[in-house]
Amino acid sequence: MNTIINDIEVLKAKTTKINEVDFDNLKFGSVFSDHMLECNFKNGKWQAPKVVPYGPITLDPSAKIFHYGQSIFEGMKAYKDAEENVWLFRPLDNFKRLNISAKRLAIPELPESYFMDGLKALLEVDKDWIPKKDGSSLYIRPFVFASGNGFHASPATEYKFIIATAPSGSYFSGEVKVLIEEKYSRSANGGVGYAKAGGNYAGQFYPTQLAIEKGYQQVIWTDDNTHEYIEEAGAMNIFVRINDTLITGPTSDRILDGITRKSIIELAKSEGIAVDVRKITVTEVVEAAKNGTLKEMFGAGTAAVISPISGFGYKDQDYTLPKLDDTFASYLKKRITDIQTNKAEDPFGWRFKVE
Amino acid sequence: MNTIINDIEVLKAKTTKINEVDFDNLKFGSVFSDHMLECNFKNGKWQAPKVVPYGPITLDPSAKIFHYGQSIFEGMKAYKDAEENVWLFRPLDNFKRLNISAKRLAIPELPESYFMDGLKALLEVDKDWIPKKDGSSLYIRPFVFASGNGFHASPATEYKFIIATAPSGSYFSGEVKVLIEEKYSRSANGGVGYAKAGGNYAGQFYPTQLAIEKGYQQVIWTDDNTHEYIEEAGAMNIFVRINDTLITGPTSDRILDGITRKSIIELAKSEGIAVDVRKITVTEVVEAAKNGTLKEMFGAGTAAVISPISGFGYKDQDYTLPKLDDTFASYLKKRITDIQTNKAEDPFGWRFKVE
Ligand SMILES: Cc1ncc(COP(=O)(O)O)c(C=O)c1O
Ligand SMILES: Cc1ncc(COP(=O)(O)O)c(C=O)c1O
Repeated sequence: MNTIINDIEVLKAKTTKINEVDFDNLKFGSVFSDHMLECNFKNGKWQAPKVVPYGPITLDPSAKIFHYGQSIFEGMKAYKDAEENVWLFRPLDNFKRLNISAKRLAIPELPESYFMDGLKALLEVDKDWIPKKDGSSLYIRPFVFASGNGFHASPATEYKFIIATAPSGSYFSGEVKVLIEEKYSRSANGGVGYAKAGGNYAGQFYPTQLAIEKGYQQVIWTDDNTHEYIEEAGAMNIFVRINDTLITGPTSDRILDGITRKSIIELAKSEGIAVDVRKITVTEVVEAAKNGTLKEMFGAGTAAVISPISGFGYKDQDYTLPKLDDTFASYLKKRITDIQTNKAEDPFGWRFKVE
Repeated sequence: MNTIINDIEVLKAKTTKINEVDFDNLKFGSVFSDHMLECNFKNGKWQAPKVVPYGPITLDPSAKIFHYGQSIFEGMKAYKDAEENVWLFRPLDNFKRLNISAKRLAIPELPESYFMDGLKALLEVDKDWIPKKDGSSLYIRPFVFASGNGFHASPATEYKFIIATAPSGSYFSGEVKVLIEEKYSRSANGGVGYAKAGGNYAGQFYPTQLAIEKGYQQVIWTDDNTHEYIEEAGAMNIFVRINDTLITGPTSDRILDGITRKSIIELAKSEGIAVDVRKITVTEVVEAAKNGTLKEMFGAGTAAVISPISGFGYKDQDYTLPKLDDTFASYLKKRITDIQTNKAEDPFGWRFKVE
């Protein structure tokens, strides 16, 4: 049956898979809702998006996504409050960043209405899939990839933009110990590190596997030239607390401009926490760990929200962080999730009601 | 009808598309032969490869290739000589490099026999697709990508290895003017530049588009830190001739170890040409262009073989290379293609007969 929601054509799935899902024991991003938004770029323009049943994508073996990595994505979450209202967090920032990524990857930019109206229609159709349990949410994955064909190493002329959703629990389970990287790196000056491009993630897997084999959960990326500056944590931006100052690196063409990161900076400042946005050296973090002034480290990103780091490894030496009772991490995590889930006032205007 | 060739199961296409192809006017990599090799990694191992009809690939929207760019490829060519013998050029080097790329991208490495026997069976089945015309060949595209599902940013547990082929004419048409890049870059120290990873190519498209808009065909990549060293030419390694010395940069973790490059080095040396493998600075190339000692520049790679460069742009200044009668480029191109196509002796043992 076809309906129209928000100007978007909706082709409803014949059956639902929702009864097969155990909403009390959700993993991250491994079961998918009944529908997805689909939008195709061809003949030089983005065609009208549609909500369709979640289902397989068929491509020619020469489709450029298989060969030249032309793909970008976003990560967002939808929350449901006690009154069954549905909320997003700063969704326009995700839209804008998707287009920043698109430009760098030579992918045609998307019209705002296709993204926003499409997303709203999709959430309307699949609203029963949004978990209500604390710490769970509907993870939203907008992505764009080159579906056009040919072995010539040049941009495709056809693309697919899809939004799929997955009811999800937390991203990390257990404590997060990180390894500060001395050899590998995730991005170059003048490269694509600031874009959410598929290739940025594939390149991290092998070094991350090596770190996992050594007993860490995550790599802390440093600059590719000197490995002396702390830059990112895989799919999170990184914060360091020395004494009572929260420090995070400035964004650059190597670092993703995280929405969680910038929200935390604003939130912390508004709470009177001293925040320093400046380059952080590995040396100062090691020194601070040694002399006891390193109080906290945490990663910040949509998937993991705020993820406290329990310790780090560097040059075959392990450093353990103190276990404080009141941490900036837990305080800021509660503040931000309370705003996201409509449990607290939102003085910043970040929350976005889906209706 | 199923047959077995070289231990490889073959499922033949019901019809052939070969009569639709104009073998006298082939573009590069845009028509595809009747069959492909397909091999799946699941349950922790590569399953036996099969030759199957060339046809669509169906994937879940959460397949990791769409999200995390986990993909690698190779580029090879098959040639047919006057006696209808089929030849490859150093195919084991492509196989080895595919596994080097696989390791860096956290993709399971392939068994040699699956690659080599599979390739031979495929070429046997599609041997009529190998063009005989000078300058044409059957371009061969082995590639591997993450077909496993899930939104967690971690390596997939399932992969597809495919070899597809495309009868092809030359890669570049017309002269090649290049732009020496001052801002963007293709790879980081400790990154994936030495791997034939999909993401390396997508990242080049936008800067290359900017260069094309300025009237160049190709970007010459420089190191991401100082932009002072000449490194690569997109899908080619780069050679510079100053006076009578041929210079090419050393390979590194930022540069692909090209099979054409290393063959040219060996070939040139055996012909008594002075070859210097050392870092090349932009400054010396500009100086040499100014004082007339810069005789030639060319790109080298499987797709383009040897591609002479007619001039370059740098800091808003254009430099034109001399038009010499006898160039190293044309001499070496003839030598290498004669070896590849069985028109000359092969003292190096590079040629590989498919039988
Ligand atoms: C590389 C990288 N850094 C940082 C982040 C955090 O960004 P955001 O807070 O917008 O989710 C992400 C993604 O979530 C990421 O992939
Ligand atoms: C980045 C890059 N450099 C150089 C080359 C040349 O390598 P080969 O001579 O093995 O084809 C290629 C590919 O063909 C390439 O993609």
